Amino acid sequence: MEKIQGGVTAAKGFYAASTAAEIKYKNRKDMAMIYSKTPCTLAGTFTSNVVKAACVLWDKQIVESSAAGHAVVINSGIANACTGKQGFDICRATAQAVSKELNVPTDSVLVASTGVIGMQIPEDKITGGVKKMIPGLSDSKEAGTSAAEAIMTTDTKSKETAVTFKVGGKTVTLGGMAKGSGMIHPNMCTMLAFLTTDLNISKELLEEALRENVKDTFNMISVDGDTSTNDTLLLLANGEAGNEKITEKNEDYEAFKKALNEVNTTLAMMMAGDGEGATALFETKVIHAKSKEDAKILAKSVICSNLTKAAIYGHDANWGRILCALGYSGAVFDPEKIELYLIGGDDKILIFKDGVAADYSEEEATEILSCEKVTVLVDMKEGDGEAAAWGCDLTYDYVKINADYRS
Amino acid sequence: MEKIQGGVTAAKGFYAASTAAEIKYKNRKDMAMIYSKTPCTLAGTFTSNVVKAACVLWDKQIVESSAAGHAVVINSGIANACTGKQGFDICRATAQAVSKELNVPTDSVLVASTGVIGMQIPEDKITGGVKKMIPGLSDSKEAGTSAAEAIMTTDTKSKETAVTFKVGGKTVTLGGMAKGSGMIHPNMCTMLAFLTTDLNISKELLEEALRENVKDTFNMISVDGDTSTNDTLLLLANGEAGNEKITEKNEDYEAFKKALNEVNTTLAMMMAGDGEGATALFETKVIHAKSKEDAKILAKSVICSNLTKAAIYGHDANWGRILCALGYSGAVFDPEKIELYLIGGDDKILIFKDGVAADYSEEEATEILSCEKVTVLVDMKEGDGEAAAWGCDLTYDYVKINADYRS
Repeated sequence: MEKIQGGVTAAKGFYAASTAAEIKYKNRKDMAMIYSKTPCTLAGTFTSNVVKAACVLWDKQIVESSAAGHAVVINSGIANACTGKQGFDICRATAQAVSKELNVPTDSVLVASTGVIGMQIPEDKITGGVKKMIPGLSDSKEAGTSAAEAIMTTDTKSKETAVTFKVGGKTVTLGGMAKGSGMIHPNMCTMLAFLTTDLNISKELLEEALRENVKDTFNMISVDGDTSTNDTLLLLANGEAGNEKITEKNEDYEAFKKALNEVNTTLAMMMAGDGEGATALFETKVIHAKSKEDAKILAKSVICSNLTKAAIYGHDANWGRILCALGYSGAVFDPEKIELYLIGGDDKILIFKDGVAADYSEEEATEILSCEKVTVLVDMKEGDGEAAAWGCDLTYDYVKINADYRS
Repeated sequence: MEKIQGGVTAAKGFYAASTAAEIKYKNRKDMAMIYSKTPCTLAGTFTSNVVKAACVLWDKQIVESSAAGHAVVINSGIANACTGKQGFDICRATAQAVSKELNVPTDSVLVASTGVIGMQIPEDKITGGVKKMIPGLSDSKEAGTSAAEAIMTTDTKSKETAVTFKVGGKTVTLGGMAKGSGMIHPNMCTMLAFLTTDLNISKELLEEALRENVKDTFNMISVDGDTSTNDTLLLLANGEAGNEKITEKNEDYEAFKKALNEVNTTLAMMMAGDGEGATALFETKVIHAKSKEDAKILAKSVICSNLTKAAIYGHDANWGRILCALGYSGAVFDPEKIELYLIGGDDKILIFKDGVAADYSEEEATEILSCEKVTVLVDMKEGDGEAAAWGCDLTYDYVKINADYRS
């Protein structure tokens, strides 16, 4: 497997475009589109929130019952959630606009939205945006990057990544883009992420690989504990790499799973590190837990703790808060056994052992906590379960961004 | 039932004292003590955190197995959590100091601590504090108020309340004090709260009443989602009111339950409204849910949502975040049925109905959200379950307080 430049247009046969449709934002790109002329096998995971955005309802239906997918239309600014029947009609109208222009079935067009909940998307703006984008569809790297920029809301950086890997002698590419960065506490998948691959694979295995992988990647990040109404992860596979179709769990399937894990982990970490107002990516690795499930619960509890997140922002090695978060996670363990380390850059220090503070230097701890990526390593000494989770620090800017988001 | 002035010294036969022992803070009171010469029946609920402070372990043992309680010694500044065997020894030394001075059994002395996790309490400071306090023990209202002040950490206001009620012609008093205000997400009970009553009641019923009531009061508040290592709620009943001992669930027991609910609700709301950095008490009432359990889950999810809390701080009627928090609560419901109201002062406005925004005035909403107490009323229209939960807004000051708590 090799990391390469690019995102959703990295894989063969995938095109992207973006435009400023003025759906809510002015003077910036707010729509993007992905397109494959070759029909794509589809997989997707969606928010577990009972309140689901209209576009989530639309996409679930398509992923579950459509023969194939051709396009995804994404807008930022308005989430199309809590919008009733009118909101669902907007999804259909958007898909119909694509269908008409590109001569593909309406039920091969997915839609995704992010932004304010409760407002209606103006139909003329979004269908107008579709018409503006189609002539500009391109398979260039730049088109992919531009699409990744157009779907940003409070993100400060666009997020894309891609890898190549070999399947039966053929080079297969998998690329993706994603956006954060508030209301991020995925439970099924993340806010918005789109993956494209030229791999040839059965729908069953494509779905299974995605479903399994999100549990260890997107579902292990949290910015603020709020599971969005719009969480959507879509994976489109058009088969243009020309490999023999993967229909069983052989070594080709394993190669794909590895590539998928690499791309999803990269996007998930990008999303966590660019959480609203964040100054640091906050990683927690738990090793030697009783089980993998325990390790996940423990790691996630630490990265979700507001008090720990505020301490990271303050570069304060207030490790008691980490112990506290492990303690209320729901996992049962012996606190006396735990060893706690702080890792940043090339430094690693032991801060807690045998139930009490280790003999560490506060200066060194503060230095580690000033890194762009701060890792807490928790050795439970109880088994061989391990997991990682990713979050960010809690800052003044998080409050600022969210106290006045709509204006 | 009647509300009266006072706190832990309101009930007959209860004394309090406080002092500056310089355990960690300088130039302020940091220790308090409650004492009853008459032996007290004890009840207590404690943190569910796996990482339990030494004082929690000490108190659990006493509440479960001691014949009676006489005193509680409380310190602020250092939490005595993650302190190993040495921490537990400090608890014993503290109790022994009281035992020696007041000639009561060591296992009749409870201890409670709040403050930084991981530091050791200097034994000479805390036993010295005990010796300083004992000559000053007083049953005056002022002594109770002063004790409530001494146990504060980042609290901005001391918290005490008291009621009287009748049992078999006798006037019974129940009073209490509590402290917040960070690491507040009680799961069994709250950070620290102490209740005293002169009621004569069996230990079984005292414990049952307390255990049942905390589920609807202290367990329904959250400041930051962090369940402390130190959560402790103690209830001491010395029987001095002279009522016939309550040993069954009769009308006297019901009168006590009502008084207990009043005192606990008052203290819990005080704690939520004085959450770290808070500018408003944020209440969520859920009515007509499928069950009481559902109503509780829904109400708590809303008051715990960082995004909703930041919107309250910004006086922004971003109701989509409330819908979102209801949606990821874990309760299953039909979003189209919900009616959502904002209440503040004497104003009440409908903001969401039939799955879409109601026709409300943003100005009026902003006015409501500027009140000191903001209530979100959620009518689920599905059954007769109802519950309330209390939190506070999320502010710059919360981050400030917690980014630099130890220095």
